[in-house]
Amino acid sequence: MSEQSAIQQYLKQCAALIESELVKSLPAAWDVPEQLAQSMFYSLEAGGKRLRPALILTAAEAVRGSKASYDASLPVACAVEYIHTYSLVHDDLPAMDDDDYRRGKLTNHKVFGEAMAILSGDALLTHAFYLVAQAAKNNGISAETALHIVEDLAKLAGAPGMVGGQAADMLGEQGITSIEELEYIHLHKTSDLIVFSVTAGGRIGGATERQLELLETYGRNIGLAFQIQDDILDLVGDEQKLGKKTNSDVEQNKVTYPFLIGLNESKAQVERLTQEAKSAVLEAGFEKPERLLDIADYLVQRDH
Amino acid sequence: MSEQSAIQQYLKQCAALIESELVKSLPAAWDVPEQLAQSMFYSLEAGGKRLRPALILTAAEAVRGSKASYDASLPVACAVEYIHTYSLVHDDLPAMDDDDYRRGKLTNHKVFGEAMAILSGDALLTHAFYLVAQAAKNNGISAETALHIVEDLAKLAGAPGMVGGQAADMLGEQGITSIEELEYIHLHKTSDLIVFSVTAGGRIGGATERQLELLETYGRNIGLAFQIQDDILDLVGDEQKLGKKTNSDVEQNKVTYPFLIGLNESKAQVERLTQEAKSAVLEAGFEKPERLLDIADYLVQRDH
Repeated sequence: MSEQSAIQQYLKQCAALIESELVKSLPAAWDVPEQLAQSMFYSLEAGGKRLRPALILTAAEAVRGSKASYDASLPVACAVEYIHTYSLVHDDLPAMDDDDYRRGKLTNHKVFGEAMAILSGDALLTHAFYLVAQAAKNNGISAETALHIVEDLAKLAGAPGMVGGQAADMLGEQGITSIEELEYIHLHKTSDLIVFSVTAGGRIGGATERQLELLETYGRNIGLAFQIQDDILDLVGDEQKLGKKTNSDVEQNKVTYPFLIGLNESKAQVERLTQEAKSAVLEAGFEKPERLLDIADYLVQRDH
Repeated sequence: MSEQSAIQQYLKQCAALIESELVKSLPAAWDVPEQLAQSMFYSLEAGGKRLRPALILTAAEAVRGSKASYDASLPVACAVEYIHTYSLVHDDLPAMDDDDYRRGKLTNHKVFGEAMAILSGDALLTHAFYLVAQAAKNNGISAETALHIVEDLAKLAGAPGMVGGQAADMLGEQGITSIEELEYIHLHKTSDLIVFSVTAGGRIGGATERQLELLETYGRNIGLAFQIQDDILDLVGDEQKLGKKTNSDVEQNKVTYPFLIGLNESKAQVERLTQEAKSAVLEAGFEKPERLLDIADYLVQRDH
């Protein structure tokens, strides 16, 4: 377990760095209605693993071989956390999943009301693109690279990406019968933002086109493995470690990987996806591939 | 009235061009859930004046002196219409203004349901940034300029811009007592996206920093004049020409310019703002300022 602890510690350091950046991510000089700003930061500061921004820093460093310029990587890392956060705020709305709590805290609309939750989600989403544009300042990346990142983010978070995954999930609900449909949802709902994170990090670190493709494979596979592992933990996990009740998927009649292909085949799938993710990283010939490999292992060995 | 007819005809031509572009604005190769795409296009194709995209084309041409490259201006023109459309879809939601009809058609959530309306608004907003990134392709504008436009759009449509205006409007509701509060709302809810349009057009046309400032003044003033004129028409307009009932603001106890400063002073204000807008354009020394001047006049002379 000592290996896993090292990567956990590393991810915690990344999370702390991201959180200190998030605090100052909305220009103080801007005249923003007080309650709107409060609503945005309520959810931005509600915690979580900060996995996506950590993957940006980690991929940039893997490609470059040394710490990539924070002037470029931190704004983009904040941007992906803004996108992730807005998606949770809108997902929790009564018209969507109708959740009152997230990570033990009241959801945004329970505190600020539905209208403000819709608007602060919109504001978080919009500001993500402002942050990406900042990455080209202060000797960060070139305007071309920043614009590539804008394009990737808009695609992977938009209609053909994360929002598409959410829509398919909502439209499918109990009606999903094939592994292909379930995979579409997970690939877009979960993997696409992870693919964005590792490829944006790759672009910041100066990856070649081939390396970006391999990072995409890595991201897609760890995203999918992460999601299947979530399904597995819901069945066989330890409630205390998870911090939530198990068997909730079964109780809610949710269609999951274990439901469709069985627990053993789900575990084998996680193993296969993780190996493929690691192979892609090894094939890419990065200067410092270790942390990307460790993160792939950590995500599926985790017990919460 | 012949002068006004020429500009109206010009704006109609712009609208037709924009509409033919909007049809192909989401890459056909993308795998987007059918109903999500339908929901997005239902609102994108719901009509309207297409004023904001027309201002992009017009400002670009004014600065450049000849038709600006459509490869750069059309994607950005579509982008601003995506942003405007998403804001209407989210605004109409039950938690916001709760409107069942817009321009005589059922609102998005009445046709596709609330969850899909939230998601298609999110998808429209996100895709706007994809479109801006396209402006740097096919011999369009430089990556630097496109990135400036990304930054401007994120600011003017985001927390310190349009979303901030919506939030202030919603928080204020009947409680607004000063002209300053009302001006904050209108400047952000309406003017900011118009400022974006004319400055983005200016950037595409190659405007200097000083010219961009003057375009900003122009956009801010015509946006505010447009809004006050709306308030005036609601009081004294012709129901048949407007296509909607007048006196709705009074019936809904809405705080308007005429309510706060009186009808005559409101009319004088519209006149003053329009003159200031036109002065800014004249001061900028553009190659072809005429259409920007005509649009300023048209917006306040219109009877619907």
